[in-house]
Amino acid sequence: MSKGILIVVSAPSGCGKGTILSEVLKDEKFYYSVSATTRSPRTGEADGVNYHFLTHEQFVERINNDGMLEYAEYCGNYYGTPKKEVYDKLSEGKNVILEIEVQGAMQIKKKCPEAVFVFIAPPSIQELKRRLNKRGTESDEVIQQRVSEAAHEISFASQYDYVVVNAELEEAISDFRSVVRAQELKSESQKNFIDEVLKNA
Amino acid sequence: MSKGILIVVSAPSGCGKGTILSEVLKDEKFYYSVSATTRSPRTGEADGVNYHFLTHEQFVERINNDGMLEYAEYCGNYYGTPKKEVYDKLSEGKNVILEIEVQGAMQIKKKCPEAVFVFIAPPSIQELKRRLNKRGTESDEVIQQRVSEAAHEISFASQYDYVVVNAELEEAISDFRSVVRAQELKSESQKNFIDEVLKNA
Repeated sequence: MSKGILIVVSAPSGCGKGTILSEVLKDEKFYYSVSATTRSPRTGEADGVNYHFLTHEQFVERINNDGMLEYAEYCGNYYGTPKKEVYDKLSEGKNVILEIEVQGAMQIKKKCPEAVFVFIAPPSIQELKRRLNKRGTESDEVIQQRVSEAAHEISFASQYDYVVVNAELEEAISDFRSVVRAQELKSESQKNFIDEVLKNA
Repeated sequence: MSKGILIVVSAPSGCGKGTILSEVLKDEKFYYSVSATTRSPRTGEADGVNYHFLTHEQFVERINNDGMLEYAEYCGNYYGTPKKEVYDKLSEGKNVILEIEVQGAMQIKKKCPEAVFVFIAPPSIQELKRRLNKRGTESDEVIQQRVSEAAHEISFASQYDYVVVNAELEEAISDFRSVVRAQELKSESQKNFIDEVLKNA
């Protein structure tokens, strides 16, 4: 069986990343990598679903054993991507999706140059503002903060391999799938197939 | 308007390349580059449709003026790709398809590293034989010759960017489109978009 593809996805808040990924993940060929954290589970969060909840000691041990693909510390808690789970699923032929923020993505780029990096962008800052306002859950101040965070994140987009613009949801989902499919069709992924055809020539 | 993509396509005879391309070319975003030749038109062939028919002098002048993207001589006749037509259509934003054999494709690879190289392959040599036999138009000897030509061509497949295997026609068409779409979504093709979004942030 051929190895799966590691897909690293980042997007500012309000870009529809969650909706796109949940649609893509309906295909069993895809696997969503669950992050690990040392923060406490919130109400309704389950271990292995929302996060792998680890103690501080467990997390540090994993770091020391090179068991994290990337990690970062926020507000006194660790967050990271357990390496084994990702590599196991890739060996099983699954396309593994890592949903991760820009800094983590840049760490992974150094370690896994064979991964595909996809940035999901809003069609414009105006539209992003409109979407965040439409939710109606946040103050103007929070929205302004989100928008400037988004702009900061978008400034990293050119360091990703692909930029999928979510102007129209169905098209964005189809674009995301095209990116992954193209990756599967790369000639270096098909060396075994080519050899096989030629062996029987 | 953003520039179109130059797509170089090669495939052994019997791989369904013609069917795939004619389907893709129904989309006006795509343009099929017509080759030039010094051989005489055959019955039913029209200038500018099947080929641009040039005199020997005209062709040599084009070569000397760097007007050919690639060219080759077969049986005393020149065959080549006129550069201007390709570049004009790319500037108009069209994705230009060059259907070309392996040697010509390798010439273009040196001149246009930004082009996308797609090899269309049969699912197996056995299946290729079966398809060629099914046509019922050629002798066993000719079929055997085609099959060994195909094997020779397939040995170049790993030098292309992508390999689209035509096992099932609909899937091959969709794969071809995914490859082109992914190319459009590459972050370097979207620099203008990213700058535009950030300018308005």
